[in-house]
Amino acid sequence: MALTQHTLNAVAMGIDTHQEPVAYMRQDCHICRSEGLVSNTRILLRTENNELIVTLNVVRNDKLFPSEIGLSDIAFERLQCSDNQKVAISHAPVVTSLSYVRKKIFGSELIASEITEIIKDISKHNYSDIEIASFLSACAGQRMSEAEIVHLTNAMVACGRKLSWGEHKKIFDKHCIGGLPGNRTTPIVVSIASAAGLIIPKTSSRAITSPAGTADTMECLANVNLDINQIENVVAKTEACLAWGGAVNLSPADDMLIRIERALNIDGEGQLIASVLSKKIAAGSTYVIIDIPVGKTAKVRSQKDAARLAQLFTKVGNACHIKVRCVITDGSKPIGAGIGPCEEAKDILSVLACSEDAPQDLREKSIFLAANLFDMNDGLGINAGRDLATSILDSGQALGQFNKIILAQGERKSLTDASHQFTEVSEKSATLIEIDNRKLARFAKLAGAPFSLNSGLRLHMNVGSQVHIGQSVFTLFSDSQGEMAYALDYYHDNADIFIFKD
Amino acid sequence: MALTQHTLNAVAMGIDTHQEPVAYMRQDCHICRSEGLVSNTRILLRTENNELIVTLNVVRNDKLFPSEIGLSDIAFERLQCSDNQKVAISHAPVVTSLSYVRKKIFGSELIASEITEIIKDISKHNYSDIEIASFLSACAGQRMSEAEIVHLTNAMVACGRKLSWGEHKKIFDKHCIGGLPGNRTTPIVVSIASAAGLIIPKTSSRAITSPAGTADTMECLANVNLDINQIENVVAKTEACLAWGGAVNLSPADDMLIRIERALNIDGEGQLIASVLSKKIAAGSTYVIIDIPVGKTAKVRSQKDAARLAQLFTKVGNACHIKVRCVITDGSKPIGAGIGPCEEAKDILSVLACSEDAPQDLREKSIFLAANLFDMNDGLGINAGRDLATSILDSGQALGQFNKIILAQGERKSLTDASHQFTEVSEKSATLIEIDNRKLARFAKLAGAPFSLNSGLRLHMNVGSQVHIGQSVFTLFSDSQGEMAYALDYYHDNADIFIFKD
Repeated sequence: MALTQHTLNAVAMGIDTHQEPVAYMRQDCHICRSEGLVSNTRILLRTENNELIVTLNVVRNDKLFPSEIGLSDIAFERLQCSDNQKVAISHAPVVTSLSYVRKKIFGSELIASEITEIIKDISKHNYSDIEIASFLSACAGQRMSEAEIVHLTNAMVACGRKLSWGEHKKIFDKHCIGGLPGNRTTPIVVSIASAAGLIIPKTSSRAITSPAGTADTMECLANVNLDINQIENVVAKTEACLAWGGAVNLSPADDMLIRIERALNIDGEGQLIASVLSKKIAAGSTYVIIDIPVGKTAKVRSQKDAARLAQLFTKVGNACHIKVRCVITDGSKPIGAGIGPCEEAKDILSVLACSEDAPQDLREKSIFLAANLFDMNDGLGINAGRDLATSILDSGQALGQFNKIILAQGERKSLTDASHQFTEVSEKSATLIEIDNRKLARFAKLAGAPFSLNSGLRLHMNVGSQVHIGQSVFTLFSDSQGEMAYALDYYHDNADIFIFKD
Repeated sequence: MALTQHTLNAVAMGIDTHQEPVAYMRQDCHICRSEGLVSNTRILLRTENNELIVTLNVVRNDKLFPSEIGLSDIAFERLQCSDNQKVAISHAPVVTSLSYVRKKIFGSELIASEITEIIKDISKHNYSDIEIASFLSACAGQRMSEAEIVHLTNAMVACGRKLSWGEHKKIFDKHCIGGLPGNRTTPIVVSIASAAGLIIPKTSSRAITSPAGTADTMECLANVNLDINQIENVVAKTEACLAWGGAVNLSPADDMLIRIERALNIDGEGQLIASVLSKKIAAGSTYVIIDIPVGKTAKVRSQKDAARLAQLFTKVGNACHIKVRCVITDGSKPIGAGIGPCEEAKDILSVLACSEDAPQDLREKSIFLAANLFDMNDGLGINAGRDLATSILDSGQALGQFNKIILAQGERKSLTDASHQFTEVSEKSATLIEIDNRKLARFAKLAGAPFSLNSGLRLHMNVGSQVHIGQSVFTLFSDSQGEMAYALDYYHDNADIFIFKD
């Protein structure tokens, strides 16, 4: 296309616009005037080597010259620009795949090539944040067909990098769809499974709508920012890894989607399945356990919904040539006592060390999941798997293996303490009969989790516990006094986070 | 809520972030550090008199002091701030109504109070752009029930201002749902109807996804930014007005929604009905004609969809206590020859002046719509109405009335010419058998319409016309050479805008 070209000199503005690239141009610059550019116009920037679509903010101030184009941090980075470099500016081309998003909004099923185009454009940063929000909202809430989810999964794999581990090898993985505070089984399961010789190169995401993801939790103890070579080295040494998936670009489109899902606090079914399976496939996994907790305030609320989701996961996995086994678990209450990255890390260490005060629910669930991996491997049954997992844990092999993985990933980090804490004490004797998982998660997030690793809370009791006057219910941790106060305001406004019965 | 308070000094940044308010704070300022604020956090700003939720952009540069908070144009304006004024900053409170948006995304029907809360929050600017995009995408595509549309309409009326014209008076209005380039009947219909004594205080919107709205077109000829007093004065003098609705804040939430709908290029059914009817109700109208053009490339593509939409419009109107009559019209081709604000204004003037070269289709359709208004008024039938409308138009009364309205609204403006134009000439003899309305609209928009009033195009033929070698097909107008080139690139890439048959 023979576009009229105009150039301006790049200036790094030092403004962090998160992941949406923004350019700043003077209202009176010749390009704004001749091209009729106004704020929020989508424009195409080109240097000799790169191009990028950005959102325009028009400026009327003397901090920028009319001959300059200011770039936000992410725009400057993605354009791989240097100060004063010439940047050619034109109207953004029509992004054809947006018409498929509209088609989806209006209820039509999308075909493979349409979904591929959408995901390719998203991974190339051709969508604005509101366009991504629109796509996600149109697809959330069981609005994607099984075929669409398969296409979405394949499209996500296609636009990222792939790990490969040689043919004929069984590569294991496990994933929990989340929704339950705490529940940080992954590092324990990976340690048990790999101690037994299973290959389990685990790449995890950060939290989407929860107070911690496995990557956030592992970050308290280890280096998780591994590149592909580092992951391969760690797996060669230990059969496993516990790395952050985002650093290896396994599914760049998914990272873009997750950012907006987090801001909108939605996590749709099709998106969820494609997000999970695309990362497993890209990581080269061939045998995958999916943990689906079910509870009144968990992500999945009924056995029926769980069964539907399990069936979809399995079918989409088959269509994408991997074996998926779903296990439906108790999601009625938190698992473990810690909520938030550091507090969950403490639970993991105590289970691995077989400490007396280790949360037994976290231990039992980890053993059950490891048993399923063993059963997928050799078909000897869950009971035999459970025995094997228990002996590996109790013998200290799992702890040894966990430490070996951490060292292979780099230096071991020490846990730090939050600068503020508050302990809630019971004013009566009663039984804790219910915890609202969603509100509990929000409570921990308001305190600063997962962005602040030390923030979160520790439960001193769980559903079913008796409490006496003066006994501690929970301790809240935060690195920010403001967030602490804010979280406590929320707690006092929401008396139903913990429900007691006299 | 006892929020921890921190203050900074306000600074107008001179950055136009369109309608999304943005605040800029130094990464190293004490509030960002103690509150753990990062880019894209939603924060609450408070002055003595106002409060506003904004999106944060963290900055690392020396153009802002750590003691300052920079505000984008719209943030500064909405906070009614002055430079150096103290602004208190805290985390934004949880916007409860966002949970109703998620409920809608996940397929549940919303009740009146939930929709009221959503619309109230949107009109108070409590939603970010991606949150508005999410709400719109969840509601688009026939996903709103009749009851939800009624709630949405009432909620939109409730949060804006209302015009009132005294009891027992019949107040008329007409509206076209759009999708057809040109088709600017409103100013003609209003002139005919009010010349006959009908009260028709017409407030129009600007274009949403089309190259011109009635407000854009009237802006070429008259002052359309009238406040409520001015509208009342104009109507008292002329029985009518032709004003921009946005200036009187009749439906502030709708203006917020339309802005994002425009960016996403979606215009959902429920949203559409609520948007149209809420403005009619707020304008005090009691008898409303809705024009629904149907055609392969119009907004509504089948008689079935049109009938469904007509029924919904009528039912929702009834539920909101106004009489709505829908007319389903031919939407297979553009109406009139001009597309874009100024070109459409020229067509209006020529029809009102009964010029020989006036577009007959525009004249006929305007007469038909006026006839329906007359029939709604006295029930004498469409034929009698058509005779009355024709005589008012042919006698010059309508033109006189049109001029009277313009003068009552302020000074008359002269039409201006675009600085660039290009005429396409046919290279063969053929018949024009089809025009793609959507692509034609995009073609005109790429040339700069509706933001640049002079931009657009003039058709020298319509569907069914014979063309000979060397004969003009259309003339394209633009005030920007870049946009002109860009529009022509699009035209050359899309050979099916005009389909000829030898």
